[in-house]
This record gives sequence, C-alpha cells and structure tokens, in this order.
Amino acid sequence: MLGLVYDGKLSLREVPRPIRPAGEALVKVLMSGFCRTDFELTQGYHGFSGVLGHEFVGRVEEADDHSLIGRRVVGEINVGCGRCDQCRKFDARHCPSRTAIGILGRPGCFADYLVLPEANLHLVPDQVPNATAVFTEPLAAMVEMPDQVHIRPTSRALVVGDGRIGLLAAQVLRLTGAEVHLVGRHEDKLDIVRHVGVITHQREGFEEKGFDVVVEASGSVPGLSTALDAIKPRGLIFVKSTHIKPVLLDMTRVVVNEVTLVGSRCGPFAPALALLSRGLIEVTPLITRVFSFREAEQAFDFAWQKGVIKVLMQHEE
Amino acid sequence: MLGLVYDGKLSLREVPRPIRPAGEALVKVLMSGFCRTDFELTQGYHGFSGVLGHEFVGRVEEADDHSLIGRRVVGEINVGCGRCDQCRKFDARHCPSRTAIGILGRPGCFADYLVLPEANLHLVPDQVPNATAVFTEPLAAMVEMPDQVHIRPTSRALVVGDGRIGLLAAQVLRLTGAEVHLVGRHEDKLDIVRHVGVITHQREGFEEKGFDVVVEASGSVPGLSTALDAIKPRGLIFVKSTHIKPVLLDMTRVVVNEVTLVGSRCGPFAPALALLSRGLIEVTPLITRVFSFREAEQAFDFAWQKGVIKVLMQHEE
Repeated sequence: MLGLVYDGKLSLREVPRPIRPAGEALVKVLMSGFCRTDFELTQGYHGFSGVLGHEFVGRVEEADDHSLIGRRVVGEINVGCGRCDQCRKFDARHCPSRTAIGILGRPGCFADYLVLPEANLHLVPDQVPNATAVFTEPLAAMVEMPDQVHIRPTSRALVVGDGRIGLLAAQVLRLTGAEVHLVGRHEDKLDIVRHVGVITHQREGFEEKGFDVVVEASGSVPGLSTALDAIKPRGLIFVKSTHIKPVLLDMTRVVVNEVTLVGSRCGPFAPALALLSRGLIEVTPLITRVFSFREAEQAFDFAWQKGVIKVLMQHEE
Repeated sequence: MLGLVYDGKLSLREVPRPIRPAGEALVKVLMSGFCRTDFELTQGYHGFSGVLGHEFVGRVEEADDHSLIGRRVVGEINVGCGRCDQCRKFDARHCPSRTAIGILGRPGCFADYLVLPEANLHLVPDQVPNATAVFTEPLAAMVEMPDQVHIRPTSRALVVGDGRIGLLAAQVLRLTGAEVHLVGRHEDKLDIVRHVGVITHQREGFEEKGFDVVVEASGSVPGLSTALDAIKPRGLIFVKSTHIKPVLLDMTRVVVNEVTLVGSRCGPFAPALALLSRGLIEVTPLITRVFSFREAEQAFDFAWQKGVIKVLMQHEE
C-alpha cells in the first residue's frame, strides 16, 4: 500500500500493509487531516520515523468484533500498555509506554490502511460527512479543556491565536456560555468565528485585560506573554502549544498574580463527535483545500504555508 | 524612631515615626523576621525604596477601635484600594493598586513602629509566644496552597527545597493526610521535618517520580526541572519561588503530560495563626538566630548566609 513516510526525508512510497493483531481492527483510511504536530515530527520532535498522520476517518475492513466491519469510524490515537496505573484508570493518553499513531512507535493514517485497537474506535453517525468527522481528533483536544477545568458561564475567556487550534478552541469555549474573545492577525480567519458568537480582535494594538480564562493557541512564545498580560489575578491559562525548545517564562508574574497554567493535549472523542453530529461546531470554513492522497507530498508542503488553515486528504474508497 | 532602610544601600537610621490615618492602627513592633523577598528588594526587585520588612508581631498603641489598644497582633501585609473588583471580593492581595508593607509603597516592620489598617490585624492568642507568632505571615503563604487547590489524603506530595519555605510547606501539606516527601541538600534541615512525619531525601541521586502534587520551593531554576521530573501526568506543581529574570521552562513537557502549574503567593492569616496556636506546626527549630533590632544591619547580612534558616529580630518592648 502507499504511505507518507518520514525517515529523515518525506516521501509517498510503497510500504507493507499493516498486519492486524488480535483485538485490533484493520481500517481503510477514507479521509485524513494535517496537524502542526506532523510538521514538528519532520523537524525532529520525538525522533519519529515512519508513516505520519493521526487525524482520520476510515472504514473497518477486518475486526474481531464483526459488528464493526463495514462501519465508518474515527479513532483515539493513543494506545496504552493496559497494565500501568494510568491505563487502569482508563487514561491510555498518559500511559508512560503508550504508542500513538503517526507520532510515537505506531504507523499513522497517511496511508491506505492502519490498525488500531477496537476499543479506540468510535462509530461515525451517518449524517456526519467524512470532511466533518475528520475534525474529531483536533476538536477532542479542545473539548479536553472543559473536561479538565470547570469553565463558568460567568467567565470572560480569551483565545490567543487564529490558527486551527484557536478557531476550534473559541468555538468550544463559547458553548459554556462564557463571553469568548479571540485575538489574531488574519481578518478572514477571525470572520469564521465572529459569525458564531465569538468577539474578535486584531493582535495589533490589542490591550484588553482581566480575563478569567486564556487559551494560548498561537504556537508562539509571544503568545504566552500576551496571555500573561491579559489574564486576571488568580486566572487560568490553558497552554496548548508545544515548543521544540524550552521557552522563557516570567515566573514571577505567575507567582505574584497566582496564575494557574494548565497544560492541555489530547481529549475525549465521544463528546467531540457528538458536538460535530449536533452541528454545534463550524468546521467546513476551516478547510482551506482538499488534496487527493496521491498528492500527499504536495499537500504536506501546502499545509504549512501562510494563511492556510486546514488541509485534508481524500483517500481512494 | 529607628528603621532599617533600603534606598540603594542598606542602613539602620532615624526615620520619622509614621502618622496614623483614620481606620489604621499604630503598632509598636515587638519581633520581626527576615524573608527572602527582603533580600530580593535590595537586588532591585520592585524598585523598592524605604523601610523594609513584612513579618512581625506587635502591640497596638493607637487605633480607632479602642478594644485593640494594648493587644498583641500580627498583620496581613497587603492593603487594597477598597473599591476595585478584587477588593470587592475581599481579595486585597490582588488589588492592582495595592500597597504592601515593606514591599510596595508602604513602610515595613523593620522599625520601632508601623501603621496598618485595623482590618488587617489579627489578635495573637496569649499562649502563642512572639517567636512563634512572627511565623504567621510565611505560614499563611503555605496555607494558601490547600486554600487554592484541594489536596487529597490519597495524594503523594513532594516539596523541592529545604529552606524556610520548603520546611513550612511540607509541614502544612502533611496535615492533609497526604504522604509528603521533601528533597533537599542539608541533613540538619531535613531532620527538622523528618521528626514530624515528612519523608526526606537527599537531592543527590534523587529520582522518585509519580507525585500528584509538587511544591517548587527551592528558589532555583533547577528546582523547577526537578519538579517536572517528579510530577505524574495530570499532576499539579505549586510554584512558590519568584525569580528576578524570566526562567526557561520546558513547556512541551507541561503540555504533553498535562501538568498544571499554580502560582502561589500570600495566604490567609486566620488559619495560619490557628495552626500555630494549636501547636501543629514546628517553627522553633527553624530559628537559626535572634538578633536585637539595634543589630539589624548585621542581622540582615547574616540572614542570607549558607545554612541559615530563619533569622528574627527582637525589638525593644
């Protein structure tokens, strides 16, 4: 089968079709999406080598549970050891020996097929098209925030950054009833969430302060500084951006203002898929372009260009 | 009266006795204590100039509320504007226009007298000696932690640092029923808390992991790295140390392990004083030396020497 492989350089090439172990499903990939992490992996993050990709919708071709066969699914990306303290608390996302498709010790979804434990799969309701369902993984990472911390309808929240993460984060937070602001640089991106009840601001000259909750989703070090400027005393900053290098942080401001920083990564698929299925999150305007999987190399280069929000790949049925 | 003044250099000298405004009390200082912040202020922190000191026990000499006169008191150090959102929520500690004795826009307690709003004062029970009551302020800052976050009896907690802050932090946390560990470099300091139920470790070769809660109380940047090594996924790190410069933080570990960092500063006096009064916190072994206030300059130099824990000054009655 074909796979988009990174092993020091990136190429779409023939790779062996994965062999399905017991308890896992063989999934034909129907659609996949690019995430910033894919790019970071090609910059040395995690020392990854293999088939990239972790955002997908697919159809089950083989499984122990025959009721899954032929069904459309999305899949949680982390696979735990099943035996450690974290796994016993059903938190494979933090298993110290976990693998994660396309990120850590497990081939990804930029391929014709992948295998994943059946327990990781979620059935996609018929009314949710592939190009919507493929957002389940990044949306789940945003749903992680209200799952970690109680966000109140009486809160004022600010999202820093108008990229993929910021545009989804603002949409999730607005469902809490909180007054949600987003600050970014691109009018066309701000427009997307302005239409669904988010108050938007241009980064240049932005000076609003006193937010109860701030989401740092800019992927940049200045974004963290903007977050510290905008947060009120005893406020809470979600940190969504990973950085390859350590970042400089004004810890004295964190201590003196008793700010809480909450690292936030992957999240729960079921509520994310439910939100998509109920039409509560706008994802279509985030899609900049859909490539064919056969154009995976060009798609990869395109995905990180300025102004691009989300790039998807249509795999052959 | 005499005051220990920092104005670019440090000196004990004659300064005007403060004039009591309406609503404030004139307090004769009986005993005072040194805090690392006093040292940092002489290194340029906050650009402070004036009488230093914020840890004290005193006796009220003048007050609007006559029932206070002659009573022994400790005093909350922050004075809010009384009108802002924070002050309306009784949180003067985070009032943006606050003053703080000996730190921010208000003369401190390294003097014969100070003035402070009557609302800031707490009566010291007769059975609590001055050399114990003077620990109310630093202890309150430790009591702030269980006031900010629910610490469970089922938690494993680690305190990084065996200085003043660490030795008090470990004692407060152990009252929650949590299994409390402290890692430090000085056997004599570790001894103090080992006798009251804290599990102690030498820093050299320390590799324990999987703590639910870590307190960074070392005042050093490597301390933060030790905290990140020791914390379990989804764990919580209290950050107690201020740093004059921004610190390098491995934010990717914070995000990937979904660690929460909680900045933690001043705390509530009433429960701290209650703990001292009930004999639940050992403070006497922390006192390295008591100077006379007339030796304030020597006391100041002594307080930051290696191996010193806490230095107090006895003022004239």
